[in-house]
Amino acid sequence: MKRHYLKMDKLPTVRRLPDYLSIIRELSAMGEMFVSSSYLADKMGVSAILVRKDIELVGVTGTPRIGYPIALLIKRIENFLGWGASLDAFLFGVGQLGTSILANRELGALGLRIVAAFDKDPRKIKTSVHGVPVFDIARLEELLTRIHVGVAILCVPPVYSQKLTDTLVAAGIRGIWNFTPAHIAVPKDVIAQKEDLTSGYAVLSARLTRIQPAA
Amino acid sequence: MKRHYLKMDKLPTVRRLPDYLSIIRELSAMGEMFVSSSYLADKMGVSAILVRKDIELVGVTGTPRIGYPIALLIKRIENFLGWGASLDAFLFGVGQLGTSILANRELGALGLRIVAAFDKDPRKIKTSVHGVPVFDIARLEELLTRIHVGVAILCVPPVYSQKLTDTLVAAGIRGIWNFTPAHIAVPKDVIAQKEDLTSGYAVLSARLTRIQPAA
Repeated sequence: MKRHYLKMDKLPTVRRLPDYLSIIRELSAMGEMFVSSSYLADKMGVSAILVRKDIELVGVTGTPRIGYPIALLIKRIENFLGWGASLDAFLFGVGQLGTSILANRELGALGLRIVAAFDKDPRKIKTSVHGVPVFDIARLEELLTRIHVGVAILCVPPVYSQKLTDTLVAAGIRGIWNFTPAHIAVPKDVIAQKEDLTSGYAVLSARLTRIQPAA
Repeated sequence: MKRHYLKMDKLPTVRRLPDYLSIIRELSAMGEMFVSSSYLADKMGVSAILVRKDIELVGVTGTPRIGYPIALLIKRIENFLGWGASLDAFLFGVGQLGTSILANRELGALGLRIVAAFDKDPRKIKTSVHGVPVFDIARLEELLTRIHVGVAILCVPPVYSQKLTDTLVAAGIRGIWNFTPAHIAVPKDVIAQKEDLTSGYAVLSARLTRIQPAA
């Protein structure tokens, strides 16, 4: 398979793709066949020019006065995101944040299957949280050899993040979705993605400070 | 006050600013006075060129072989984000997600003060969750006239999002931080920012599909 690396400057577009997808799936469910860039722009709160640039990335061309073919657009976005197949994951740290991720139905609908969760609290071990079994973190190395997952979701206290990451990377896990405030170091061939509310809050406050209307 | 609108293409930089801030605050606490773009690049997992572009946005210039002055950089990033003053907020929907936001200490440290939460579950009303009092949503209009907040955090089931937004906007709230999967419509002078895990998941899967090393 030829690999196309994703350029950093395309990430904002990639972040918007799930929203396009949810809007056009709704239209598709209502029997619509085409969607215009101005309809999408209005729903997304962005300019029609940006919509056209975004959709260019997944390789769909619109027809003037008709719009984009919805079925093709859905297929191309799903392919672009690799959302055809499901992705198995382990989750670490069943606190408030970990529990809210286990409860999230959207991620499941997109193909993310959290097959096991880990914690060190004896009150949580051997329970099931939103249908996901919780194991003792002490059993991690044993379970890593038995179950193969593509991604690890980190919701542990930040002091454990790096050590846990090292264990996971050594066991062959190639994707770390890091919800802890800690910055983690990984080898070049591993994807580490940091996710936290502070980035979103930064954008919100920067916009509120400028009372910026939707772009 | 002169208003500088924030351009859409600057948002990725703004999203990274809190990470720069946390890295340089750590250095500052250790007594460091300067930081190089290559140090920041390494910690952030991005290129030094991108670091220099990011920091240009907040208006700090580095000196070759010395780096950026840390104290000034902290001040400029905080000013840029409007993080000098605190921002008061109401939170709606004390479910798993709402609770994990109430538990988040990072946001508090950045100046977000959630002064009240609302729910319709009688078991939650009149309790306090992570120190925040929970009110009956039926009392919203009364409380909106008594307490002024800058932002509303939406964690309600998506079916309520638009109606709640309309009430909040009518009461003069200018910022809606939307954690529900629903797309909401707001007037031009109101900031609505949608936050969900699907955007982050889209970037993660697109990167995993391409086994992209950190850019």
